[in-house]
Order: sequence, then structure tokens, then C-alpha cells
Amino acid sequence: MLQESQTKWSETEEKIAKQALKKAYERETSALIAHVRDRASSLTKLEDLWYVHDFLSTKRHEIDGKYAYNDSTIVFDFALLVKEGWLHLDELKGLKPEMLSKISALARMSM
Amino acid sequence: MLQESQTKWSETEEKIAKQALKKAYERETSALIAHVRDRASSLTKLEDLWYVHDFLSTKRHEIDGKYAYNDSTIVFDFALLVKEGWLHLDELKGLKPEMLSKISALARMSM
Repeated sequence: MLQESQTKWSETEEKIAKQALKKAYERETSALIAHVRDRASSLTKLEDLWYVHDFLSTKRHEIDGKYAYNDSTIVFDFALLVKEGWLHLDELKGLKPEMLSKISALARMSM
Repeated sequence: MLQESQTKWSETEEKIAKQALKKAYERETSALIAHVRDRASSLTKLEDLWYVHDFLSTKRHEIDGKYAYNDSTIVFDFALLVKEGWLHLDELKGLKPEMLSKISALARMSM
């Protein structure tokens, strides 16, 4: 577990974190839009339309959760974003080293 | 209100009703697929993507309800389909005249 001293954010760290989150958000949502646009262009069957609907339900829920900037989950959110490829560890440079190690370790685990 | 004798279906009437429902279903779902395909082809913003998601949620719920072939709601379902233009009254020819009048009258009301 991270100690309280390790999870406290300086103003600079918070800025870095928010910028990184924004970057990942833009990447993931742009990719999602492009994916749905491509998939929808060849829609011919109703079951495929409902597949797109189910897919969007899942993604919307995931995205709402991942990008909410919640202090208590941000380490896990960043780890997941790194694992999924929406964020690179380098983009979190400036955060406390122990925080970065934690994110890096979690990103290598299956979540 | 329709009397019980009026709502009882002969085998032929049930066949006509089911064929009409199938026809309307095919028309509405084909139009829906084409509409989403067109709309999705110009997707560039996340809010538009969530609009498509909301739209599909509503349509899926509506379609599941309208085409379920429920004896107790079929007159209203047909009236709605006629009102929305997915079915023409002619396509229900063979049903009891009082049933057709009821459907026709309901279709002209705002529902």
C-alpha cells in the first residue's frame, strides 16, 4: 500500500496527472470514434447493430469510470491506461518515483 | 373496448397478423440500420457517438416491445406501426372488420 505521504499531490503533480489523463482520454475516444465509424460503415444486419450498441454501452461505462480523476483510484486508472496503451509512463514524468513504480508494476499485472 | 369475441383470432387471422408484423419489422429495422450507418459515417465528436448510443438504446427498447406479438397489445402495436408508416392498413386485410376499424381509429390518434 502507498502511504498517505506518497499519495498527496503537489500542484505540479496534479497538473501533470490531469494533462496525462486528458491526453489518454483524447487518444482513446478518438480511436473509439474511428472504430465505430469503420464498423458502422459495413452494417447490414440487426444483430451487428445491437453488437455496436452493446459495445458502446460497455465503452461508455468504462470511459466514464477511467477518466473521472478520482484521487483514490488514480494510480489504478493510470496503470490501466498504460497497460492498454493509451498512455506512456514517460508522460507521467514529474510524479513521485514511488508512485511511478507503483503504476508501472500494476500496469504489468493482469487487471 | 373490444369484446372477447372480437379479439379472438382464427388461424388465418393469426397468420395475416404475423406476416404483417414481420413485414413492418423488416422495414423498420432496415431503415434503422441504414440511418445508423449514414449517421455513423460522419462521426467525429464523442458527444455524437453518445447520441448514437442513446438513440440505439431507445430504438432497441421500442423495437423489442413493438414486435413481441403480444395478444393483449397487438391492436395498439399495429395502430402504432400504421401511424409510423411501417405498415399499411391494406396489409392487415383479412382481419375482422371491427378490428381493422379499431386499428385505423387508433392510428389516427396521437399516441
